[in-house]
Amino acid sequence: MPDQLSDQAKALFDGKGYVTMATIQPDGSPQLSVVWAKTDGEDVLISTLEGRRKHLNLVKDPRVTLLLNPAENPFAYVEVRGTATMDTAGGRELIDELAWKYNGQGYPEEPADAVRTVVRVTPRRVVERGL
Amino acid sequence: MPDQLSDQAKALFDGKGYVTMATIQPDGSPQLSVVWAKTDGEDVLISTLEGRRKHLNLVKDPRVTLLLNPAENPFAYVEVRGTATMDTAGGRELIDELAWKYNGQGYPEEPADAVRTVVRVTPRRVVERGL
Repeated sequence: MPDQLSDQAKALFDGKGYVTMATIQPDGSPQLSVVWAKTDGEDVLISTLEGRRKHLNLVKDPRVTLLLNPAENPFAYVEVRGTATMDTAGGRELIDELAWKYNGQGYPEEPADAVRTVVRVTPRRVVERGL
Repeated sequence: MPDQLSDQAKALFDGKGYVTMATIQPDGSPQLSVVWAKTDGEDVLISTLEGRRKHLNLVKDPRVTLLLNPAENPFAYVEVRGTATMDTAGGRELIDELAWKYNGQGYPEEPADAVRTVVRVTPRRVVERGL
């Protein structure tokens, strides 16, 4: 299996489709949520807040899997199994950029104690079906 | 968190939305795929083939998580963390029923050695957001 995104997979992650993100709960079971995402050309970037379930899970186990399937062709998909690194630098800029991409406007102001974090997912394995 | 599907969640799983399904790889990382699903009123039923990655993973660890988000409101979702039991009885009937629900026609004939299996996901925890 390839360990990089194809051009088609990059285009999907840079489009407006919502991404399903899987992390590992402390008990080893899978946790899923819906997120915005974009690529920097190689990695997939996601925004979260410190303290959210997915953030706590990734601190404990950085293995993360993403899936994106186009609304108009839902059995086609790209699955990215990756490793997450997290950094608060650029956290506010990323959520704004994602809000512009998906909603055409900046992200609402957040409480002063909300710590925006960039989750960088570096692919280990990429599975594409029917793209 | 509730351990049963709400009426709204049941209606979603009995609609035409595609479901993202997470299982646990042998190395403990999450594996995702896209599946059809329906409920029997309490549990969520999914079809797979013996030997598929998700089937092998569930034999080893029956913990499974499902996520369904409506295409018209993609940040709303229902996440079901459940336990899978598998049975080949009714396997062909289920894939036909799902094909009728999603595609309006029966499922194509499969090779004689393809073993259709019913994956019954009994919810342990249900998380609903914005439904």
